[in-house]
Amino acid sequence: MKLAVVGLGLIGGSMAKDLRRTKFATEIIGVDNNPENAQIALKLGIADRIESLDKAVKEADIVIVAVPVDMIVQLLPYILDHISASTTVIDVGSTKREIAEAVKNHPLRGNFVPTHPMSGTENSGPMAAVEHLFDDKICIICDQGKCRPQHLALVEKMYQSLGMPTAYMTSDEQDHTTAFISHLPHATSFALANAVLAVEDRNIIFDLASAGFQSTVRLAKSSPQMWAPIFWQNRDYIYEALEVYVRHLEEFKESLKNNNYERLSELIVNANKIRGVLNGGNSSLTKNEETIIKLYTK
Amino acid sequence: MKLAVVGLGLIGGSMAKDLRRTKFATEIIGVDNNPENAQIALKLGIADRIESLDKAVKEADIVIVAVPVDMIVQLLPYILDHISASTTVIDVGSTKREIAEAVKNHPLRGNFVPTHPMSGTENSGPMAAVEHLFDDKICIICDQGKCRPQHLALVEKMYQSLGMPTAYMTSDEQDHTTAFISHLPHATSFALANAVLAVEDRNIIFDLASAGFQSTVRLAKSSPQMWAPIFWQNRDYIYEALEVYVRHLEEFKESLKNNNYERLSELIVNANKIRGVLNGGNSSLTKNEETIIKLYTK
Repeated sequence: MKLAVVGLGLIGGSMAKDLRRTKFATEIIGVDNNPENAQIALKLGIADRIESLDKAVKEADIVIVAVPVDMIVQLLPYILDHISASTTVIDVGSTKREIAEAVKNHPLRGNFVPTHPMSGTENSGPMAAVEHLFDDKICIICDQGKCRPQHLALVEKMYQSLGMPTAYMTSDEQDHTTAFISHLPHATSFALANAVLAVEDRNIIFDLASAGFQSTVRLAKSSPQMWAPIFWQNRDYIYEALEVYVRHLEEFKESLKNNNYERLSELIVNANKIRGVLNGGNSSLTKNEETIIKLYTK
Repeated sequence: MKLAVVGLGLIGGSMAKDLRRTKFATEIIGVDNNPENAQIALKLGIADRIESLDKAVKEADIVIVAVPVDMIVQLLPYILDHISASTTVIDVGSTKREIAEAVKNHPLRGNFVPTHPMSGTENSGPMAAVEHLFDDKICIICDQGKCRPQHLALVEKMYQSLGMPTAYMTSDEQDHTTAFISHLPHATSFALANAVLAVEDRNIIFDLASAGFQSTVRLAKSSPQMWAPIFWQNRDYIYEALEVYVRHLEEFKESLKNNNYERLSELIVNANKIRGVLNGGNSSLTKNEETIIKLYTK
């Protein structure tokens, strides 16, 4: 299988590494608008060779578009214009509504499978690419009814070889869900970094930075080139998520202001429920089983 | 050296393990108001024997008070009442003003060294105790002028054997700094957990939980028995920190609401500065060197 990876950064590079390791890909053609990154990717063995976008997408069995989401919107119609009729195209962006909109009337829309492999780190560029980044993480596939079944099947097989279970939802559902599970945590982390950076005696604070602080601000190190466009494309749902979040912060503030120890304790006890939910505890997942089953089965 | 550890949980248990490993302690007497935890600590080899509070503190060279901060305030005067005149007492609580206040007029105030070893995990109890929890983390020592020099020296030697550099500040400075570096990240994490737990399709969200979400809500799993009293004792500074934080979240909301992409990008670029500051980059630390030197040298 011949792969073209457009954007040789953290996600594109990591996928290339794993797809080579699992032998899903036999040849990997790299494309990057940054010649330096392209050369690094070549040296790191992420790509076998570097080609122009036009040449790469014409040759490939699968094209993986792994650039920031604003560039996906721009590149995707062009890529669909230039592939052969049998080529499969996927994007791996964190948003989906604008991307889906950009190609909804394209004659080769059925060749395109919108996907969101839910993994990453706070680092970026080809040097950040690592093996096993996607093991056991979930990949969301959107609007699968609009994909031609052969292309969908091949993409599912590809994610299977990456060790990723797939979930199915509409672009709108994906953007709403991802606003809470991924974009909101990034916003909370960016704001925490900004808040502490603004404090007068911030240097003392950083010198004392504990593991708790480090883990909570980790995401604040994430690339603006990647994240500003994500926030932008999903701004209505992220705004909604931020409103919900600030409301919950205000509850903490109120309990402190009103000297309401009981309420404060309740808020912490409630937050603790996240432990059961995230640590493989399925008790709360059974409640809405129907919804999940609906989403996870086509 | 004979140690009494009052409270055989995450912090007390981990300190006991390391102080035994480094041979700083030759005998460890455990005290816990929960008989089950006491027995677990005994079985895990955290304590050599379990005694009553009175008996343990009378025998010990050093008493480590490692219970929730509301209990420290209650126990500390009693412990100072019952130690021999040569015994050193430390607490390891995350707040300091109320604790210092509780014993400020005690005749043996000089035997007490208020400390805050800045490490931990989201887990609690003796089973959560681990070796090397404190390696290279900072320990804050408060109001050192009020400690008799022999007791201060012994405590410094103890933290040295744990591999912890020490920083010196007043109880008030410690509570303010810790509000931002430790208590605020916990609040942001508790609120994030509560926000997502409140979302209607929360089960889908949890099933998709990515590494980013997991790392940002990790602290939300922390024990309410430990954290409600910390928030309570430090409520004025935590309220201040939350106000600063919410202001920075509102900036994100505003940039989204006003369709101000440039401002949104600026906010993320600014947050990225945390990378240089936390990853050992000292460029921004040099600015306030004087303050730091003042704080770190007695």
